[in-house]
Formats: sequence, C-alpha cells, structure tokens
Amino acid sequence: MKKVLAELLTIGDEILYGQIVDTNSQWMSVELDKVGIKVVRKTSVGDQEDEILTALAEAEQRADIILITGGLGPTSDDITKPCLVKYFDCELAIHEEALAEVTEFFKSRGRELTEINRQQAALPMCCTKITNAMGTAPGMWFEKNARLPDGQGKVFVSMPGVPHEMKRMMSEIIIPKLRQQFKTPIIYHKVIRTAGIGESVLAEKISAWEKALPEHIKLAYLPHLGEVKLRLTAFGNNLAQLQEEADALVKKVLPLAGEYIYSFKDEPLEVVVGNLLREKKLTLSIAESCTGGYVSHLITSVPGSSEYFQGSIVPYSYEIKMQQLDVKPETLNQYGAVSEQTITEMAELVRKKFNTNIGVATSGVAGPGGATPEKPVGIVWIAFSDGNQTITRKLQLSKDRMINIRMASIGVLNLIRISLLKKIA
Amino acid sequence: MKKVLAELLTIGDEILYGQIVDTNSQWMSVELDKVGIKVVRKTSVGDQEDEILTALAEAEQRADIILITGGLGPTSDDITKPCLVKYFDCELAIHEEALAEVTEFFKSRGRELTEINRQQAALPMCCTKITNAMGTAPGMWFEKNARLPDGQGKVFVSMPGVPHEMKRMMSEIIIPKLRQQFKTPIIYHKVIRTAGIGESVLAEKISAWEKALPEHIKLAYLPHLGEVKLRLTAFGNNLAQLQEEADALVKKVLPLAGEYIYSFKDEPLEVVVGNLLREKKLTLSIAESCTGGYVSHLITSVPGSSEYFQGSIVPYSYEIKMQQLDVKPETLNQYGAVSEQTITEMAELVRKKFNTNIGVATSGVAGPGGATPEKPVGIVWIAFSDGNQTITRKLQLSKDRMINIRMASIGVLNLIRISLLKKIA
Repeated sequence: MKKVLAELLTIGDEILYGQIVDTNSQWMSVELDKVGIKVVRKTSVGDQEDEILTALAEAEQRADIILITGGLGPTSDDITKPCLVKYFDCELAIHEEALAEVTEFFKSRGRELTEINRQQAALPMCCTKITNAMGTAPGMWFEKNARLPDGQGKVFVSMPGVPHEMKRMMSEIIIPKLRQQFKTPIIYHKVIRTAGIGESVLAEKISAWEKALPEHIKLAYLPHLGEVKLRLTAFGNNLAQLQEEADALVKKVLPLAGEYIYSFKDEPLEVVVGNLLREKKLTLSIAESCTGGYVSHLITSVPGSSEYFQGSIVPYSYEIKMQQLDVKPETLNQYGAVSEQTITEMAELVRKKFNTNIGVATSGVAGPGGATPEKPVGIVWIAFSDGNQTITRKLQLSKDRMINIRMASIGVLNLIRISLLKKIA
Repeated sequence: MKKVLAELLTIGDEILYGQIVDTNSQWMSVELDKVGIKVVRKTSVGDQEDEILTALAEAEQRADIILITGGLGPTSDDITKPCLVKYFDCELAIHEEALAEVTEFFKSRGRELTEINRQQAALPMCCTKITNAMGTAPGMWFEKNARLPDGQGKVFVSMPGVPHEMKRMMSEIIIPKLRQQFKTPIIYHKVIRTAGIGESVLAEKISAWEKALPEHIKLAYLPHLGEVKLRLTAFGNNLAQLQEEADALVKKVLPLAGEYIYSFKDEPLEVVVGNLLREKKLTLSIAESCTGGYVSHLITSVPGSSEYFQGSIVPYSYEIKMQQLDVKPETLNQYGAVSEQTITEMAELVRKKFNTNIGVATSGVAGPGGATPEKPVGIVWIAFSDGNQTITRKLQLSKDRMINIRMASIGVLNLIRISLLKKIA
C-alpha cells in the first residue's frame, strides 16, 4: 500500500523571529502519525507572497496533502488567503454560510460585526469551507487534480494558527475527511501510562512481550520526568479486531508491569489519583517541604479537586515544621528534616491536623544548595499515612532543582495511588 | 546595507513524527534576530539522504547562512555527516584535535572510548571543526565560494540537536564568527519586564514615547499571561553610544509606566520579589486558596528561597480556613471565602501564625465550578499584609482554570513588589 505523504507549512513572521514556539506542527505530526499519514517535511515561511507561493509549489511536488496554518487573521499583514487565491487562480467571494457563522460568533459574544470581520467570510470560490467552531476565520479545503484514477490528486488545507481553533478543525473535520479520501488503513491506539519506573528497566521487564508483538502492532516509549508512556499502534482493516488484539496484549503486560501502570487512557497522574480518592470517598491533605507547593498545584489543577482535597501546608523552615505542623524538635535535631523519621511525622501530623483520611509528605534536598555529604542534592523522602500505617520511600533524583521538584511530586502522587490500590487487594 | 539571510534546517525523524517539539529553532531565531540576521525559512526533514541533499541545495539558493541541527549521533540512523560529505564532495578523516576532545570528554566521565564514539571525531576534510564543550559530536563549519568580492559566499554550519550542546556552540563560537564574517551591525538589546498591565493599556500609556523612538531603535511587545515584556533593539556601529541611547530612553519611559516595570533584565517576577525580600531582610508566608500552591511553587522554584520564605498554607476548604488559619466563621458565613473581608483576614492571619514580616493571600473562583451570579468564574481577591496595613485587590480574570491560577499568582507576586517599593518611597 502506497504511503500517504503530508507536508506541514507554517506561515507567519512571528515563527521566523522566534516570538512563538511552533507547537502546532508537533501536535499535527502526532495526530497524522496516528492515522498512518507520514509527514515528510515541515516548512515555516514569513508573511511574504513570493515565499508562500514558492513553498506551496515545492510542497505540491513532494506531498499528497499540504496542511497550512497561520496568516488568516483579519489584519493586512495576514496574506495567506490572497496567496491561495493567486495559487489556485480563482475568485474571492462572500460565502453566505461562513458569513452566517462569523455573524453568530460575534452575536454570541455580544459584539458587533465590523467590516474587517465580514471580510473573513470572503473565501476563494474553488475551496470547500471548513467551519471554525472556536473562532472567526474559516478553514479552506482545496483539491488539485483530485480523485484522478492514477491517485495523483493533491489536497491543500488552510487553517488558522490559533492552536485551539486548528486542533478542533483537525480532529473533527479534516482528519476524518483525509482518512476517507485517502483510504488510510484503520488504526487503533492504546496508551499505557506508567510511573515510578525508568524507561530501560520497564523495557527489560516487558522485553519478551515486546518481542512477541505481531508485525502490525508497534510499540513506542515516550518518557517524561518520572513517567513513561507506552503507545501501542495497531494497523489493519477491522477496528473491532484491532481493539480485541490490543486489549489482549494489555492483559498480558499487566502481570509484568502492573503496579507501575496507572492508566490506559491519556490522562495525567493527578487526575487518576483524584478519581481514586473520589471513588473511595477519601479526603487528602499534604505537607510538602522540598516540593514547595507543586504537589498541591498538581492536585488543584484538576477541576473539582475540592471534593477530596482539604488543603496543605508548605513548612519550608524548621520553625514552621515545629510550630505549625508540630514536628518534634528532637526528631529534627537528631535526624534532620530530610529523614525517614521526620517524613513519617509530617505525613501523620498533617493527616491528623487537617482531619483527612490520607496525609502525604515530601522532604528533600532539591538543590543546588542545602546538601551535605550524607544528604546530597537529589535525596528526597516521601510518605503516605492513612491512620493505620505510614509508608515511606527514599528517592535518589537528579542534580537539577526543577527536575527534582517535578519528579518528587510525581513520586508522591504515585505513592498515593499504589497505597490505595494495595488496600483493596 | 544588504540584509544577511539565514535558513534553519532541522534533521531528524523524531521531529516529523512529533515525538519532540522543536524548541531549538525558536531559540536560534531569537538569537539571530538579536544580531540582525534574518531567518527566511525553517525546514524540517527526516533522516533520509535524498531529503537532506535536496533541502541543502534549496536552502543554498535562498540564504547566506544555512544552520543545520540534528543527525550527528553515533548510531546508523544519524546520517547528516555522510550527507554533508557527499554535498561538499570531500573526504572524511579522523580529526586529531576532535579525537583528543572526545577522548577527554569520556575520560572526564570515567568512561572508555568505544570505536563508535571514535568515529564521531571523523570529520569532512573541507570543514572547520567547532568544539562541542557539552558533548561528543563536534560541530562543522563549511564555506562555499565564501569571501568572494561579490559577497555571494555561503556558510553552512552543522550542529548537534541536543539543545544545551547546540546553544553553547551557537553562543560562544558560531554567532561571534558569523557576525565577524558577515559584518553585521552592532546590536544592543534592552529588556523591560512589566506586570499588572495589559498590552493595549501599556501601549497607550507609552505611545508618545514609542512614536518618538529614533529609526534605528525598534520596540517589540511580548505579552504572556499577566506580564508584558518590552524589548528595545538598537542597531548601529558604536556599542557605547547605543547603550547610552537605550538607557536614556528607559529613563524617559519610567515616569509613564514606572510602577508596572519590574525588571530591566530578563528575569522572572519571582526572582525580583525574592531579591527585594532578601535585600530588605524580610520574611514571607502565604495563604493561598484558589491558586492551590502555585504561588508557593513559583517562590520556591528560585534557588535559595529558604532565606526569605518560611512557608505557606493552602486552606482549600472552609474547614481548613477556620481550623488551621483561624479565619472567623462569621466572616466566611457573612461574606463567603471569595471576599475582601476573608482575604484580609487570611493575609493577616498567615503573617501572624507563621511569624513573618509579610503575609499574602489569594482566594477566588478558578473555575469551571464554584461560580455564583455575584461571583463568576475568574473573580479573585488577593491581599498583602505587613502588620501596619493590609492592601487588597480584586482581579477579574478569564474563564480558564489554569490561566486564572497563573494570572492570580503573578498578581500576588506583583502586589508584594509594589507594596514593598511604595514603603521605601
């Protein structure tokens, strides 16, 4: 089967000047890869007619699908639309449906439609309009010699550069339309999210399983600070069969790495922990020292977290550890703040003081300062207390302050998850 | 003066598959823009010989400088070097100095040099080696018809894709060498960071000043969630004169927007606030409700913050606000948690309980839940207390939870800064 090839063309001076990072094209690459469309090139050019026309012509030589983002704003420096009119040699005219949509968009926000916005509904007559559910500039779908028997037809799609507008268009309209037109194979993805295990150790644990994967199912490792995401991609013609195969494979990997796996959906650990607490009707409090508020931030970044999260204390200094959390001076003096004894007290005390079912704590040397020969940068203690028991873990992390804060926070979230799951078993 | 043009060429399948976001080319664009080199195109291709050779030839047509990153690793899927050998039609040979450097690199890490790493010291004989101070793959500098009287010479530079290796090479060797060879004008940048004012209001306040800027000094607005960075770029032949001009301009903008300006260096607000607290030998505590730990996270992301930061409490629920922070039940019942009365108590109480000079607090509706007709999503109260006075502010932010958390946090950091500065005046 011939591979379907795509080229991504980003238009805008702000990309060339480095004023913004082009995250759109990374997102598009991932989504296209998932449906078996291969990106062969990414190009960024400025808001200049000759540059844009040349880039379009070059891309047409190389790819079946040319996906264009940017340059559709209402001001005069945005020239993608006039360039497309020139490239496809067709007239611009007000598109009645597009005009109705942009009028409605302004009305719903209680704003008047200005002439400059009215012009956003003017589209090249040779294109198909793509509705922009999140903004005012419609997308445009062009075909050139398309659907010829030799399969040499090309599709050009122009989208706004605003990420949430582009993403909604791509997911809901453009990708389904491309899959239909180019008859791409059916693809089924299964994501397995893990925490608490490094990429290489995980790879070793599941190596026999990985080697036995059938030819049409691929595995990708996507590691990120304390977490590793596994992505299974199954290619075929029958969706139900692919799902069945992937689910069977997941069942086989569970005994090999079960406790490290926290989700089969693409959701972060703080959402999984939040769901567990909500299901079990448990409340949480946190005493975080070296993580300085970041664990609380992750927990409260989830909408509705007030259902299970009562609050936290960041006892950064010795004094606050003693006076506000009631950590015993003897414990601090004898063992120091970064110790199993102190972390145990911290988790138990915050649970009692905040009157919650679960209390967790962190204390460590985030760096670069504060290290001693026995407690180098990167040593972090974490603890979980539920009133019956207190579980502690010692982590040896990196030399980098921000990495240590992030990894220790993921570590303590994962400790909550594992401890709660073990209680059911 | 003819503009010097550059093209950025990124090589690697991982970019096309979207496994990584290409942040390198954004960084390079900014650095090149600073020295007056204009990026005319960015291109990404995969690890394929024909793709790479075509992209090199195309770039040579368009630009004076072609900056290539990626594909220099020791494994067989990295083919940038053989492609360059082919493109420049010259031999590969072990470069003795490069070999000494890579040997030293391994030795300093207590590792043996393998044959595969030895091959990293093999370079095309027609290139100039660029030392890689941070890794094992040297950079390569090629010239084609360079230094001809008509100025049509081209420079190609190949660098590793690892960000910190590339950045060090660019900053220390490549940019100075390019400036020399292409005789780019001297450029002086002055960054002015502001908080607490929107882009358009700021633009209005300083519009007369902006209009009066001389031709050779440009102003850029770089807004980001509650902050606006202004960048003055002065072009000329005499550095001392440019500095003097820029400094004089900055003096003139101070009376127009002085209280919003927090730094003339490119440093974040939490660093500026930390420095102020350290200089004045003041300690800080925080009671944060709707920001859920994010203010504490920003403060503690700065190394050495334990000098001024004592700790915080995140009293997420009503119970914790009353029991741990001692907010009066009457205040909560009568005015609610999101009110001037409650925020005033929170800031004063945390300051007293944590025994610090300064106490600050946040309370609001981050969303999407928790809104009432009187208190819609995006309403946030913030407060600063120093024992003599408590200053409060009401913010009306957005509909987005994460944006509200970020903007409220920047808001309270800025309130600390402004309050401390007013005390001196």
